[in-house]
Amino acid sequence: MQITSEALERAIEELAKLPGTGRKSAQRIAIHLLKQTDEKVLTLADALIQLKKSVTRCSTCGTITDTDPCSICSNSKRQNGTICVVEEFQDVYLIEKTNEFLGRYHVLGGIISPMDNVGPDDIRVKELLQRVGNSDEPVNEIILALNPDAEGEATSYYINKLLLNYDIKVTRIAYGIPMGTELEFIDEATLSRAFASRTAF
Amino acid sequence: MQITSEALERAIEELAKLPGTGRKSAQRIAIHLLKQTDEKVLTLADALIQLKKSVTRCSTCGTITDTDPCSICSNSKRQNGTICVVEEFQDVYLIEKTNEFLGRYHVLGGIISPMDNVGPDDIRVKELLQRVGNSDEPVNEIILALNPDAEGEATSYYINKLLLNYDIKVTRIAYGIPMGTELEFIDEATLSRAFASRTAF
Repeated sequence: MQITSEALERAIEELAKLPGTGRKSAQRIAIHLLKQTDEKVLTLADALIQLKKSVTRCSTCGTITDTDPCSICSNSKRQNGTICVVEEFQDVYLIEKTNEFLGRYHVLGGIISPMDNVGPDDIRVKELLQRVGNSDEPVNEIILALNPDAEGEATSYYINKLLLNYDIKVTRIAYGIPMGTELEFIDEATLSRAFASRTAF
Repeated sequence: MQITSEALERAIEELAKLPGTGRKSAQRIAIHLLKQTDEKVLTLADALIQLKKSVTRCSTCGTITDTDPCSICSNSKRQNGTICVVEEFQDVYLIEKTNEFLGRYHVLGGIISPMDNVGPDDIRVKELLQRVGNSDEPVNEIILALNPDAEGEATSYYINKLLLNYDIKVTRIAYGIPMGTELEFIDEATLSRAFASRTAF
């Protein structure tokens, strides 16, 4: 096989490194880009460069942002004394999409996991306690919204224990039957959790 | 919903324009890139910029290349008097992968299609005749490797008719039963073509 364009080969190789993109998709994308105007491809390349250049972490909540503090932390309308604790900034995205939560966030940037050598000091727990102890912004509720797996549970318990020393309500999001499914397809662990967490009708 | 990073939003938006990439995949790719080193993302962005900057068409065969003439046209080992006619440069890629063909190519850059307002003058037929008439590189066989659909057939017939004036063998690649399939799953058109084109055992 003789390659006629090294530039195309290199673009395919780089695109194939992206998640969910094999060599065939990378080839399709590269050929698509070849057919686009220079401007469109430069816009894409620039968006990727800016992604790395301008995105930092908010020093308050730890989510990704272009400006520090982030638009949620600097939005006075969202100062309602509630902080939702999540594992990663993607979770902020997901929760924001629901338009259900109007307080602020705290991104741990990880989860306690002895298997992966991640302890309480490796995630932003200390920063959470600082925010809670900070009298500028009184906090009356912490909502734990971590994944319902072993690590998420352990981290939730750990944070709850630390917060016992403060006069703060600690809640967690409800785990139960997802909307739109049928009981038949639900695993036992979820079903038993749904029973244990039943609410008044 | 409050967006904390415009740069991330923009990257997702641009990535979602790529073929086969919806908003969810674009988000996954953007988050993946955020976690990579600056260098890796710059390498990707640069590969895309170079793709547009350095890739041109070979003035002889019409395939894409970084240098004109392309590495196949300038490779004297491939001057064996055979030219394979294909619709697009992707076909050169596909045929090169088989390591079966050791001659040169001619990329038409399209196919005759009255429905799409593409006539013989819109594709590189004139350039093919020029190559055939050029005494520097004697051509003794033209292999037509166009798609076996109405447009491909029409274009093949048209080119064959033009080449009747020259002392050149015109062949076409075999259309028949693909390897590794079962007759049961083959459509009638393919099966009847396979019968018509049967070869001695």
